[in-house]
Amino acid sequence: MLLARVAGTLVATDKEPSLEGLSFRVLSQLNTENEETGSYVVAVDAIGAGVGEVVMYATGSSARQTIATDGRPCDAVVMAIVDTWEVDGEEKYHK
Amino acid sequence: MLLARVAGTLVATDKEPSLEGLSFRVLSQLNTENEETGSYVVAVDAIGAGVGEVVMYATGSSARQTIATDGRPCDAVVMAIVDTWEVDGEEKYHK
Amino acid sequence: MLLARVAGTLVATDKEPSLEGLSFRVLSQLNTENEETGSYVVAVDAIGAGVGEVVMYATGSSARQTIATDGRPCDAVVMAIVDTWEVDGEEKYHK
Amino acid sequence: MLLARVAGTLVATDKEPSLEGLSFRVLSQLNTENEETGSYVVAVDAIGAGVGEVVMYATGSSARQTIATDGRPCDAVVMAIVDTWEVDGEEKYHK
Amino acid sequence: MLLARVAGTLVATDKEPSLEGLSFRVLSQLNTENEETGSYVVAVDAIGAGVGEVVMYATGSSARQTIATDGRPCDAVVMAIVDTWEVDGEEKYHK
Repeated sequence: MLLARVAGTLVATDKEPSLEGLSFRVLSQLNTENEETGSYVVAVDAIGAGVGEVVMYATGSSARQTIATDGRPCDAVVMAIVDTWEVDGEEKYHK
Repeated sequence: MLLARVAGTLVATDKEPSLEGLSFRVLSQLNTENEETGSYVVAVDAIGAGVGEVVMYATGSSARQTIATDGRPCDAVVMAIVDTWEVDGEEKYHK
Repeated sequence: MLLARVAGTLVATDKEPSLEGLSFRVLSQLNTENEETGSYVVAVDAIGAGVGEVVMYATGSSARQTIATDGRPCDAVVMAIVDTWEVDGEEKYHK
Repeated sequence: MLLARVAGTLVATDKEPSLEGLSFRVLSQLNTENEETGSYVVAVDAIGAGVGEVVMYATGSSARQTIATDGRPCDAVVMAIVDTWEVDGEEKYHK
Repeated sequence: MLLARVAGTLVATDKEPSLEGLSFRVLSQLNTENEETGSYVVAVDAIGAGVGEVVMYATGSSARQTIATDGRPCDAVVMAIVDTWEVDGEEKYHK
């Protein structure tokens, strides 16, 4: 999984029918120093993550292992809101 | 998922039989500022996206989770036409 | 999918038994301007593509969605010979 | 698989329910010289790897082939603690 | 698939139980000129490839399509020892 900040939202009316009702989030990828890397991904939000929150997302077939995304053409899913992480004993982020 | 502009079309007569009837689109990848990144992918169009439209596409096994692509050797699918997205409260694209 | 030129062939006698009889092609990846990018992949040829031809290939689990590659340790397959593609109304390649 | 040092831990209370009870590790990727590359991934720990240990991790659907991760939205798993590796007859790491 | 030279071996005693008995190889990736690219991967050896041999490896779910790796948390497998390949009519490697 990778870390990201929920940077925004995306609306798409005309889409594969199985995606109806899902929420799309624009994620700005973070490194372990809690700095934005400049990379992004659009992910389905499986847990109710708001804009500004720091989250983890999974990609590939693993992104379909939630009730919201099972069997759908979705390759990235927000699967956790991060409370905190530390690297080498130093806290790098705290919610 | 990633964002892209439908840049063009591709024709391939001689192909794996299960791909018969599918439409291929040349996608030019976009960043969240709605700028082209220079990367591309050829995707199957599952929803009827025309040249010039801004879309989302899914890759990997998730690209086979549509009726059009199920069980086919397809690793990228256009699964939504984007209406709008915003980043940090600023609208970056509007259809 | 990505575009490639069939640059050459590869022979491997000592291999996983399920790969017996498959043809391996060395693919040189192309961008949408029909220029070689310098990246390559070795793919199984599912459709009879000759050296010099311009093809599309699929990767990952999608590379196993052909009769030739089903259930085999193959992560790239040539699944179409390209006739033509265009970008922004301009033909970039014609067979 | 890739090599990594377990650099830290991550806590996420609000997450996809199927992830309950799993331990997340922040991994700092290593090259074969046992040097950190600057890349990271957050992985589920399937084997009890502590901070500072050198491990191997698997990604993608292969990350779900453990009892801990089966059927869960997890795309990276620590699946081995490394004792030693050598390159060109030279030992590059010893636990 | 990609080309690689078997650069070394890796030992991991403490690992996911399903990996018991498998041989891990440190692979140094090759380009089509038979030059090392500097990238590496650790792969399970499904065919008995020795250090120094030039091989092909498959990644992702395709790495689990061998008897040795089926159902195991393994995302890279050596599936062929290469005899020879040629690019643009020129032999680039011969065993």
